[in-house]
Amino acid sequence: MSTVHALHPFLYDRTVRRALAEDLGRAGDVTTDAIVPAEAVATAAIAARETGRVAGLDVALHAFRLLDDGVTAEVRLPDGSDVPASAVLARVRSRARALLTGERAALNLLGHLSGVATATRVVVARLEGLHTRVVCTRKTTPGLRALEKYAVRVGGGSNHRYGLDDGILIKDNHVALAGGLTEAVARARRGVGHMMKIEVEVDTLAQLDEALFLGVDAVLFDNMDVPTLREAVRRAKGRVLTEASGGVRPDHVREVAETGVDLVSLGWLTHSAPSLDVALDVEG
Amino acid sequence: MSTVHALHPFLYDRTVRRALAEDLGRAGDVTTDAIVPAEAVATAAIAARETGRVAGLDVALHAFRLLDDGVTAEVRLPDGSDVPASAVLARVRSRARALLTGERAALNLLGHLSGVATATRVVVARLEGLHTRVVCTRKTTPGLRALEKYAVRVGGGSNHRYGLDDGILIKDNHVALAGGLTEAVARARRGVGHMMKIEVEVDTLAQLDEALFLGVDAVLFDNMDVPTLREAVRRAKGRVLTEASGGVRPDHVREVAETGVDLVSLGWLTHSAPSLDVALDVEG
Amino acid sequence: MSTVHALHPFLYDRTVRRALAEDLGRAGDVTTDAIVPAEAVATAAIAARETGRVAGLDVALHAFRLLDDGVTAEVRLPDGSDVPASAVLARVRSRARALLTGERAALNLLGHLSGVATATRVVVARLEGLHTRVVCTRKTTPGLRALEKYAVRVGGGSNHRYGLDDGILIKDNHVALAGGLTEAVARARRGVGHMMKIEVEVDTLAQLDEALFLGVDAVLFDNMDVPTLREAVRRAKGRVLTEASGGVRPDHVREVAETGVDLVSLGWLTHSAPSLDVALDVEG
Amino acid sequence: MSTVHALHPFLYDRTVRRALAEDLGRAGDVTTDAIVPAEAVATAAIAARETGRVAGLDVALHAFRLLDDGVTAEVRLPDGSDVPASAVLARVRSRARALLTGERAALNLLGHLSGVATATRVVVARLEGLHTRVVCTRKTTPGLRALEKYAVRVGGGSNHRYGLDDGILIKDNHVALAGGLTEAVARARRGVGHMMKIEVEVDTLAQLDEALFLGVDAVLFDNMDVPTLREAVRRAKGRVLTEASGGVRPDHVREVAETGVDLVSLGWLTHSAPSLDVALDVEG
Amino acid sequence: MSTVHALHPFLYDRTVRRALAEDLGRAGDVTTDAIVPAEAVATAAIAARETGRVAGLDVALHAFRLLDDGVTAEVRLPDGSDVPASAVLARVRSRARALLTGERAALNLLGHLSGVATATRVVVARLEGLHTRVVCTRKTTPGLRALEKYAVRVGGGSNHRYGLDDGILIKDNHVALAGGLTEAVARARRGVGHMMKIEVEVDTLAQLDEALFLGVDAVLFDNMDVPTLREAVRRAKGRVLTEASGGVRPDHVREVAETGVDLVSLGWLTHSAPSLDVALDVEG
Amino acid sequence: MSTVHALHPFLYDRTVRRALAEDLGRAGDVTTDAIVPAEAVATAAIAARETGRVAGLDVALHAFRLLDDGVTAEVRLPDGSDVPASAVLARVRSRARALLTGERAALNLLGHLSGVATATRVVVARLEGLHTRVVCTRKTTPGLRALEKYAVRVGGGSNHRYGLDDGILIKDNHVALAGGLTEAVARARRGVGHMMKIEVEVDTLAQLDEALFLGVDAVLFDNMDVPTLREAVRRAKGRVLTEASGGVRPDHVREVAETGVDLVSLGWLTHSAPSLDVALDVEG
Repeated sequence: MSTVHALHPFLYDRTVRRALAEDLGRAGDVTTDAIVPAEAVATAAIAARETGRVAGLDVALHAFRLLDDGVTAEVRLPDGSDVPASAVLARVRSRARALLTGERAALNLLGHLSGVATATRVVVARLEGLHTRVVCTRKTTPGLRALEKYAVRVGGGSNHRYGLDDGILIKDNHVALAGGLTEAVARARRGVGHMMKIEVEVDTLAQLDEALFLGVDAVLFDNMDVPTLREAVRRAKGRVLTEASGGVRPDHVREVAETGVDLVSLGWLTHSAPSLDVALDVEG
Repeated sequence: MSTVHALHPFLYDRTVRRALAEDLGRAGDVTTDAIVPAEAVATAAIAARETGRVAGLDVALHAFRLLDDGVTAEVRLPDGSDVPASAVLARVRSRARALLTGERAALNLLGHLSGVATATRVVVARLEGLHTRVVCTRKTTPGLRALEKYAVRVGGGSNHRYGLDDGILIKDNHVALAGGLTEAVARARRGVGHMMKIEVEVDTLAQLDEALFLGVDAVLFDNMDVPTLREAVRRAKGRVLTEASGGVRPDHVREVAETGVDLVSLGWLTHSAPSLDVALDVEG
Repeated sequence: MSTVHALHPFLYDRTVRRALAEDLGRAGDVTTDAIVPAEAVATAAIAARETGRVAGLDVALHAFRLLDDGVTAEVRLPDGSDVPASAVLARVRSRARALLTGERAALNLLGHLSGVATATRVVVARLEGLHTRVVCTRKTTPGLRALEKYAVRVGGGSNHRYGLDDGILIKDNHVALAGGLTEAVARARRGVGHMMKIEVEVDTLAQLDEALFLGVDAVLFDNMDVPTLREAVRRAKGRVLTEASGGVRPDHVREVAETGVDLVSLGWLTHSAPSLDVALDVEG
Repeated sequence: MSTVHALHPFLYDRTVRRALAEDLGRAGDVTTDAIVPAEAVATAAIAARETGRVAGLDVALHAFRLLDDGVTAEVRLPDGSDVPASAVLARVRSRARALLTGERAALNLLGHLSGVATATRVVVARLEGLHTRVVCTRKTTPGLRALEKYAVRVGGGSNHRYGLDDGILIKDNHVALAGGLTEAVARARRGVGHMMKIEVEVDTLAQLDEALFLGVDAVLFDNMDVPTLREAVRRAKGRVLTEASGGVRPDHVREVAETGVDLVSLGWLTHSAPSLDVALDVEG
Repeated sequence: MSTVHALHPFLYDRTVRRALAEDLGRAGDVTTDAIVPAEAVATAAIAARETGRVAGLDVALHAFRLLDDGVTAEVRLPDGSDVPASAVLARVRSRARALLTGERAALNLLGHLSGVATATRVVVARLEGLHTRVVCTRKTTPGLRALEKYAVRVGGGSNHRYGLDDGILIKDNHVALAGGLTEAVARARRGVGHMMKIEVEVDTLAQLDEALFLGVDAVLFDNMDVPTLREAVRRAKGRVLTEASGGVRPDHVREVAETGVDLVSLGWLTHSAPSLDVALDVEG
Repeated sequence: MSTVHALHPFLYDRTVRRALAEDLGRAGDVTTDAIVPAEAVATAAIAARETGRVAGLDVALHAFRLLDDGVTAEVRLPDGSDVPASAVLARVRSRARALLTGERAALNLLGHLSGVATATRVVVARLEGLHTRVVCTRKTTPGLRALEKYAVRVGGGSNHRYGLDDGILIKDNHVALAGGLTEAVARARRGVGHMMKIEVEVDTLAQLDEALFLGVDAVLFDNMDVPTLREAVRRAKGRVLTEASGGVRPDHVREVAETGVDLVSLGWLTHSAPSLDVALDVEG
């Protein structure tokens, strides 16, 4: 089980409220309000319907808490657990209305984040025995970046930049507009604080040599074929952190990693991982 | 090309701002701001990298407009277009900084929505010749429901409820907590306005008969095997709208539809469709 | 007493905060803060000063709770009660400052919503013995739509659309811009989900016949004189839901309803109902 | 025509957005979007359907501007105009969709504010020849206080406090909790800035004498019968501003004013004034 | 110790959340979350590191409460206390993470507000024995006005206007644009409510005479030399409240006050007072 | 003149709106609205009243733009300029009302940020000839962090972390709660992404040796006396970035820097720098 620290609810409270607001709209849950008495209390199990790694259980429970501050929850398989199909992750006791009204928002969050964690874990498993770390990108679902980056960590992956403001990443377009890599790095260095790292995207070995000469913190090899990547890693080894990126799919990630590259980044983890099937079973 | 009406920017302005805010953080795009002169202007092509149906092009352009109100865009393949890999969807001219800073937010939105539209279109295509409509569910990505439902329409699908407040859908839990379907429907009818429809989930043919007797607007068959579904549709035909739901995957959707059911709903379209690969190419 | 379900505080929390914010401004309740000790506790009665139907009591109590989370309240005459002048609706015990500071926000909400409920109840009572339902419109007070629609239900009325997005209502302007009713309905049907109903405004019997032929869900007779309305209802009976709208005032609503129309809608209920006189009496 | 200054849109932009958001919901104006082509342009007249004083025309136009930044408007009868039934207040030219989608939000605001202005003007007219000013209270519609206070000024009335923070008003409850008027005033004075006035509610002539001795800025006579009020005004004349409040209805406001009181305040103006009937006529 | 009433948390809740959000960003306190176990509990002392007057202690505690609703605090030296260096103001017991994560937001608020209170107290002390009151201005730190005005009161000062909407202050630019003081005052009076005061800026004795003739509530002498100010105060005495403003620095404030002026206003108190040095000491 | 890139208005738009909202309150600028005609246009000069370095001019202009979208501005001395007293920084032409209403918000922002830039520049100047960089801290004014960090850069300083989420800084409390520096660093490393640096606070030379052994990116010497600091810098030189922090005041900053330390951080720059005196002169 992973020991990744959970996000403080301060960081996702709005996201959960937004999910509930999408569902409650203007009139609320008209079906439940009409049918289920306000005072009815019930217990429900949050369960997985397929194998995967859990992420977002606290986030899901937050949805119920926003609808009923008397909710109690017994968590059995917390974030980071690898669970079989049918596993009960937690039992929630609350007003029955809160369970039915909050169900979809809670499950959509849990399923989405567990999907990201599961996909990450699968990729991480494929790299067993190698030192290469699996890294996410900024190709995240709009509005869910912090939660998805958390899910990647739960899945055993590591995080790249959170945004455009917490690291320098010089890409081909920057180089083109600056008139060369050396000039681009020089400009970037002028304004950067001492806590910020500089990474440079390189497409060729010549660019790599230029970057190595400039002494940056990391280099990103974009869409490089495996033989070139192997040579690039060889040259950079011990001098700079290396990252392979661009179109890396789960099925050939090990081949990429075996070049010895330090990091493999996959946008796929956050933009295309399928949701994990989770459900809420009211038990009475 | 689809003729689905576009959403008014009033409805997604905040979503796009949120995506930009995730990327700009506190300090903004430190790389671009350090390297690219404020006054530099550039043109970029928004292009598809794989085959699919476009959705969200206006939403993506909105990201650039929020960073530079002088943006001009020439749209070549608007929402609803089926495009080949490498197709240029639009050309955008703006301050170079706005292009680089807004790129990821714009592409994340466009890729995600086009992914949903493409997935929907694929499923719709499989039902060619049948009257069955493809319908989305409330299993959407938190914060993106309205945009995803739009993308489903662009893909040729149709929308189910937008939330818990714009239609009555009585599920098994409601029936259990009300002590029976008849009582649940009676309670729901008491409060419902004349513009709201009532749909009931039925798991057995006996329940279907009860629902038909009650005269509801639609019945949802949840996880029914195909032979039972065929019989259910036969009984309901001409009396009530029928919907098949629960675990319908693209690969057996036609089999389900051939029972004659009116609607097939797939959560998969919105919670698990992979993103379409799109890119921004700065042309100078 | 009505059994209309209450709105979840999630749906009106912001509205109540906004009301308090209008009153507290930047410096808060300078009079109370200067005069009343922070630790003083008091009990107050929320009372009606005139006969009417109560709506919004929980909403009003929410104002006090936002100022003092230790508030306790004993509700005697909940929403839906028909009360005489001087009736004590509830007793609230809290810090004295919270009572005085929250008083106006609480009473403005309670008085406004009870005014709407009372007006609705009066109109509903006039239709006793008839099957016609009293319906509200979208002519609501900006910012208070969900609460006003709730108050209409508390008053015994029923709700029309909540917005432009949860039902199709084709009006004369739409027909004019589409070039005819048949074309307008055809266009509307193309995009509409299966949970959404279509209502059409008709001004003449010829238009009614066209609408009936098209098989819409409801027809709205706008500003029709009573004899024409009677004939229209006769033709539509059993084929489509009928609604009379446009300038229906409480004093001639029964005459309109006696045509047999299914629904009578009155904007007056929400945009012009006078507030019910309510007060807060500090009891020490 | 009144020369009251208009509110800056900065102050009501959110209110108008909120009104539009209530109407557009998640999916927008599904009827209009399905039926009216995006590029269609139309002109519409905003007209009064009954006699009254106009208030809120700019606020209403703002609704259209938020939907179409190319709106042009020709204002014929601006805020402060007394208009006959059928008067065209303004002509608006814009995309047809914006006209139909924004219509209800615009008219709800215009009708509500014109209703307040009209009611105020009627009361002001009854006091012709007297020096007494008509004043509103904090009994306003939640969320609309600043706009309603503006409408009162347009109607010829004057404003009392905007909130609990911009003036001291010591009421009976404050006096009770402080243990006497003298102590209450002393406490209030300790914290008050030099730009803030102190008004005291008095219920008896003895209290008035105490207040006069204390040298406050204004006294509010709450629910005083006319003979007592006359004596109270006599004693206070020239020493302090006097205000009659509490249950003053339009039909006996002149009788109250003829006591010579400086101000008559009516909650009725803002919480119970019926909406003015206004409409939007699309002219093609 | 001052007895100034505290602001209700309703008024600063957002300000504190904003401060926390600046610090937590997207990923939260990555150092603390990685190092300190979630369940660890600790006690910390909030202490002054230099002599000063405390203001903002409740505001600071609110930061911890937003991160851990189980926080308990023992306040020893509340707002208004004059404390020596090293004084322990309060002890806070909470989850250790909340203490470390909230520390900076809490201390930034406490240090800033105590800085304002301390500066005010120093100025007030210099006027001992004189009747002149020390007043703040609208030259406040953006986003912190209400809190800074509170801190001024804690320091023994008094508040001027809170904004442009709660008092009339006619400045030289207004006079110039109106074509004269008399016209400016006349225009201002037309729209002003009875609870609002009128103050006029005068630069010369001639302008003062004009203002006195007009009967305004207060006059502000802007940047007047001391002899002229003395004459101005002499003329105004007993007729109008007098305020000296413009470039009054702490070191010559007594000289200004000895002219007999009623109020001395210093923007310096809120825009340039140095922060008080405060710290959080974790005690285990 | 500095060439620091300006912040995109997207990053401070809300801050400026908040400043305006504090000033406009509910009723707006009642003085200006009553006195100055809506259509009047004027030109004003934004000027410095004392010597300093300009920062925040675009931010200030944004305030006027939010009130009048027709504002034109001619900037003469942009951010980064060192200006004498009386220097005209920019001329603004706009509706006269916007100038007077926006003046205080604009100047409060400009004065505050220029104050920070000026203070930074003064400190930077004292280190002339040394390689030591001046760095800000997280001791910023709540709500203004991003702008203050920008102002520090304009002043020639460099930025430390923006928040708790974009860098690891292990302080004494973390070490204590982890049971030692080595364990603290180990825990921090486990979760950290490759773009994030690790800095460790050390109070003794023994701790420094431990930190050097662990291979962190930077060490912060907290409140070290100069001789110890000199020895610490000597040991760390060439192995790790060094920072001196804690109670460094402008008057002895050079002495600290002459130890050879790489960075000197001063909270004073952002929490205690006095505002620069700036003014708006309406020129007609």
